[in-house]
Amino acid sequence: MNKKDKTPRPKARVPRGFRDRLGAEIAAEREMLARVSAVYESFGFDPLETPAFEYTDALGKFLPDVDRPNQGVFSLKDDDDQWMSLRYDLTAPLARFVAENYDALPKPFRRYAVGPVWRNEKPGPGRYRQFTQCDADVVGAPAPNADVECVVMLGEALEAAGLLADDFQIRINDRNVLSGLLETIGLVGDEHSDKRLGALRAMDKLERLGEAGVRALLGPGRKDMSGDFAEGANLSDRDIDRVMAFMAATAPTNAETCARLANVIGGTAAGAKGVETLAEIASQLKKLGVGDSRAKVDLSVIRGLEYYTGPVFEAELVREIKEDGRPVRFGSIASGGRYDGLVERFKGVEVPAVGVSVGVSRLLAILEVLERGGSRGEGPVVVLALESDQMADYQLMAAELRGAGVRAEVYVGGSGMKAQMKYADKRAAPLVIIVGGDERARGEVTIKDMRLGAELAKKIEDNVEWREGQKAQASVPRHKLVEEVKRTLARG
Amino acid sequence: MNKKDKTPRPKARVPRGFRDRLGAEIAAEREMLARVSAVYESFGFDPLETPAFEYTDALGKFLPDVDRPNQGVFSLKDDDDQWMSLRYDLTAPLARFVAENYDALPKPFRRYAVGPVWRNEKPGPGRYRQFTQCDADVVGAPAPNADVECVVMLGEALEAAGLLADDFQIRINDRNVLSGLLETIGLVGDEHSDKRLGALRAMDKLERLGEAGVRALLGPGRKDMSGDFAEGANLSDRDIDRVMAFMAATAPTNAETCARLANVIGGTAAGAKGVETLAEIASQLKKLGVGDSRAKVDLSVIRGLEYYTGPVFEAELVREIKEDGRPVRFGSIASGGRYDGLVERFKGVEVPAVGVSVGVSRLLAILEVLERGGSRGEGPVVVLALESDQMADYQLMAAELRGAGVRAEVYVGGSGMKAQMKYADKRAAPLVIIVGGDERARGEVTIKDMRLGAELAKKIEDNVEWREGQKAQASVPRHKLVEEVKRTLARG
Repeated sequence: MNKKDKTPRPKARVPRGFRDRLGAEIAAEREMLARVSAVYESFGFDPLETPAFEYTDALGKFLPDVDRPNQGVFSLKDDDDQWMSLRYDLTAPLARFVAENYDALPKPFRRYAVGPVWRNEKPGPGRYRQFTQCDADVVGAPAPNADVECVVMLGEALEAAGLLADDFQIRINDRNVLSGLLETIGLVGDEHSDKRLGALRAMDKLERLGEAGVRALLGPGRKDMSGDFAEGANLSDRDIDRVMAFMAATAPTNAETCARLANVIGGTAAGAKGVETLAEIASQLKKLGVGDSRAKVDLSVIRGLEYYTGPVFEAELVREIKEDGRPVRFGSIASGGRYDGLVERFKGVEVPAVGVSVGVSRLLAILEVLERGGSRGEGPVVVLALESDQMADYQLMAAELRGAGVRAEVYVGGSGMKAQMKYADKRAAPLVIIVGGDERARGEVTIKDMRLGAELAKKIEDNVEWREGQKAQASVPRHKLVEEVKRTLARG
Repeated sequence: MNKKDKTPRPKARVPRGFRDRLGAEIAAEREMLARVSAVYESFGFDPLETPAFEYTDALGKFLPDVDRPNQGVFSLKDDDDQWMSLRYDLTAPLARFVAENYDALPKPFRRYAVGPVWRNEKPGPGRYRQFTQCDADVVGAPAPNADVECVVMLGEALEAAGLLADDFQIRINDRNVLSGLLETIGLVGDEHSDKRLGALRAMDKLERLGEAGVRALLGPGRKDMSGDFAEGANLSDRDIDRVMAFMAATAPTNAETCARLANVIGGTAAGAKGVETLAEIASQLKKLGVGDSRAKVDLSVIRGLEYYTGPVFEAELVREIKEDGRPVRFGSIASGGRYDGLVERFKGVEVPAVGVSVGVSRLLAILEVLERGGSRGEGPVVVLALESDQMADYQLMAAELRGAGVRAEVYVGGSGMKAQMKYADKRAAPLVIIVGGDERARGEVTIKDMRLGAELAKKIEDNVEWREGQKAQASVPRHKLVEEVKRTLARG
């Protein structure tokens, strides 16, 4: 085994930007994903699992915000000289899958997918290079019916995960509506792409910077808090007024917003199409009993718009969450939209598609703060191993407990009683089963309630109280083990 | 969107050696893994999730059968010039995790892990470069107590997955017993490592080649069926007799096997230690009610022995499975053993460890042949969308059905009735809900039983029978939709 004892020992460390996850966190994520998946399945979506790798050329264009295929992704050359990359999202593999199996698939094709994705980016606090995504998409369905369904389903999925109906709002916009606006201010065509992007980025900051800040960014630019100057989009005052009027068109009711919008951008072809779609979505949602505050047409929603081609939506937390007395901002919990160009790059024909993606780690963080997450699991009952020739009997006790649905294990390490109690403590064992020679001679088992013990230990100040603490344990006849353990656990 | 229409279109193809998986297969695997995981959890194991990547130097030595770290794994250089590799199993990351977090962990540390691993190997039929593993390990527990627990737990896990008690057998051996044998024939020390490996490989073929074949491979070598000559281990006749006597020591009862073994190799230190361990394991298993046919000491079990340091075990299918009348061999369903050197390469001190790994894809294949797998899911009820201005009503029907626990979706594509029926058929929809203008005027819905329709369609030969086939559909008042759907599904 140890031929290489002379080679230097490697340092054990998790790779930079990656992390290990343990029991409680995994259990919470698993339960959340199971609940969300169950909603997706109830809507007729089936799971699809694609491999971690895709050929790099198949990923190329849909890398968000970056046109160079080897930036942002982990890539390597296969031994047949083809470049492969780890998927950076679940949508690009879906596009490849649909294009590859187009004729065999039912159309529309509904699939959901849950799994890790990888980003070759600079890690930072809370920013990891591997994380979980949870998407549902419909390929082959034109707007707006599937879009309506995605909005409704997203709401149900978030509630199934543990949010309350008034914790969140789904905000809806449409790429064509924004195109209409850009057309009214003359920003169509490749030659204006920088200016267009600048204007959209400025609009995206309304909530954060307020009206004056956005006006500055639409115009000559703005100095931020740190003193850095951010270049503006250099629109004319008249165009800035138009953009601001557009965003101000968001009204309390969806019907009103659509009516106002028609006045602002209805004159352009794209704008008219966008307004019509939003109006139809709003109308269907109303008939489905989805209120305007649950799903709100909101013209300030600007998502990756070089990617989306129709309706876009995002779910935002509207309940204020405070940590240490100060409100915490979480950003969007989920998002989605229509991207009719998805499969086109493979097949040369447009295939309509719309989907939704839940922000797994963000939603989990919110559920934890709100204490709405699933059960985080409990430690096992630990049977101490005090006499080495009694192992089989200890194992039989654990087996009896498991047979009654109680999580239970025997201490299988090599240490004595003190270390075993410490172990049980570290495992967050609710109870410990103690059978030494004395108990065995009497035909008894001792059940020690670690939770009660911990409670009492906090208050112990003298010897009398310490003896009181012993109430946390009781001896019962061996054959009453299961009954007594279940009773004690229930008392919890 | 389409700035790059002139770039050639990439071909949509899943990378070589990888595959996509769809609904039914995913559902079967998911259910099996959930059942096995539940058994692991009931034994006090908690989940651990490590990232896909490890630093290549941390993987190095435990690459099975290969000492070169960049062969067999997918590796790439991170932008800080450190080499990273995708994990090829779940044990090497466990070793790194334990070494990195040693002081903070409870000892023994029990964890289970389920997830994909990657092998940079030549793909072949049924051999993929990404597959799922499902392991449970105990780190920090010396033999034999944790080993006994692993054997018991493995049996329960396989039964939970769907095997019957007499479908399989867990065969147990011990590395030290084999060391004792090798010592009696003088094959200790580095200078004999080739000969040792040759002898072990020959022994591993007993079941396949029979006694004569193994004797030839232990001796001068042997010509196989294809005419190729396989080099032998060149043992003397006396040593070959000893090896064969060793393997013949496997007796019907574990106690008898251990007694015979003591005679053959008890004189060597390693041999005596191995026999003692096996005898203790056999004794504990007996007390735990695990019969000798369920868990059998079997001296022909030879697993990766440069890796294991104590007891080894593997679960084999003993029920004969036939496909097209011919028996199919599946190989081992699960395996495990003790590897006390696992963490040593990081920490420089030996940390005892034992674990078990279920062969996920093999077990799934067996469960499918035996028809013991979990439910493979059913298609959703499909509500046809026949009038475009009635979408909200169709969605309400689907929502009502989901509210009653029935998987249901509305057709959201853009095609007519014929394509919609085809779609429902491809989705394996049990029922289709049809509401056109006529039904709507009458306040009715039509429920078409696709399963019954398909049954009848097989037999249809004339028009009368075709009309009979119409019995597969019935119209009911709109408010009876849910009730009638549930009744029809139950009739299934």
